[in-house]
Amino acid sequence: MYQLHIANKNYSSWSLRPWVLMTALDIPFTEQLIPFSTGAVQTAFKAFSPTAKVPCLVDDQQVVWDSLAIVEYLAERHRGVWPEESAARTWARCASAEMHSGFTALRNQCAMSCGIRVALPEISAALRDELARLDVLWTEGLTRFGGPFLAGKTFSAVDAFFAPVVFRIQTYNLPVSPTVNSYCQHLLGQPAMQNWYTSALAETWREPAHEDEVTDNSKRVVVADFRA
Amino acid sequence: MYQLHIANKNYSSWSLRPWVLMTALDIPFTEQLIPFSTGAVQTAFKAFSPTAKVPCLVDDQQVVWDSLAIVEYLAERHRGVWPEESAARTWARCASAEMHSGFTALRNQCAMSCGIRVALPEISAALRDELARLDVLWTEGLTRFGGPFLAGKTFSAVDAFFAPVVFRIQTYNLPVSPTVNSYCQHLLGQPAMQNWYTSALAETWREPAHEDEVTDNSKRVVVADFRA
Repeated sequence: MYQLHIANKNYSSWSLRPWVLMTALDIPFTEQLIPFSTGAVQTAFKAFSPTAKVPCLVDDQQVVWDSLAIVEYLAERHRGVWPEESAARTWARCASAEMHSGFTALRNQCAMSCGIRVALPEISAALRDELARLDVLWTEGLTRFGGPFLAGKTFSAVDAFFAPVVFRIQTYNLPVSPTVNSYCQHLLGQPAMQNWYTSALAETWREPAHEDEVTDNSKRVVVADFRA
Repeated sequence: MYQLHIANKNYSSWSLRPWVLMTALDIPFTEQLIPFSTGAVQTAFKAFSPTAKVPCLVDDQQVVWDSLAIVEYLAERHRGVWPEESAARTWARCASAEMHSGFTALRNQCAMSCGIRVALPEISAALRDELARLDVLWTEGLTRFGGPFLAGKTFSAVDAFFAPVVFRIQTYNLPVSPTVNSYCQHLLGQPAMQNWYTSALAETWREPAHEDEVTDNSKRVVVADFRA
């Protein structure tokens, strides 16, 4: 049985990616959740991961410590991780890798916090550029491969890679096109996403560093908080 | 025939990765080099890449616009891109993905410039941590899989992913362990690396933004410049 090490569902965008993929694809695993804790993070995560980061997949003696490597590891063992068709698979890998190393304004300025809603006083130029790129990228995938998922008829790893972006768009009410919004609603309606969201809302942990990141050290207004 | 779009060999660390992999593995391709040019970068690169970035592999109608996706695209079509053995392949993918999204201090503070040697006035704490991680990672690979390459007997994608780090260690004379240094010397001796290095030295382009990055806006001393 796979062990998937993750952190808080409310905050941990990287944890969400393999979790939602494995859940959507019915790949059995045991969830090992260790909440972020100020100061002691490194020690707790070092017990299973060489980089002291989550997610980390453990399959018997094999440790797979990066989200994209986890996807490729699963793709060698299970159908549906990537699209079957070569062009869709290539596109999905490019888009996932672009997310893996990029979209830094979105990641830094709009940290994931599933359960709250935050008013952004302004959209920076860098964030605006990334939202424009996101629109082009998603529209291309949905158009070329027919939807309703990014690379075709079924949920695949590229949807998992952009799942945290969907939560971010919801949390910060980011300005997006009708196409992007429609895909977000579709993804938020998936059982695996609803399962994660429900658990995130039930969490009672509040980690100061993450809270400060989301509100930009109290410079942003929290307009709603649905967490327990 | 594959078309591989790259930028200046002296500066473009991401271009080096697929280039050195394809060259080392004797995968035929046509090199399309467009030098960086201040201000006009986006326009020139947009002609072939949706992100206006290099490297970009074009295979007939298929555009593969991210370095890690290029590797997986090639791995589906050619032997030797990843190690044959499962544990070595998984380790190689994790290490490559860690490089793809991480080692930001090394990437930001020690920009690649193959042909010069620069004195660093100090090693930041973040850079020191990353060099320590690099030592652990490379030592693990070389020990577990027997060397002389990171994941075994032959050059694979994980060596390609760390090839720019090897040039950076040389340029900035970074403090590394004997194991790391020995691997660097081994990689620098590979024909594909020597081929790239020779071309990099022959380039006469000087792009101000890259030059400023390397010298931290003239705060660092250039102790040697072997470029034409």
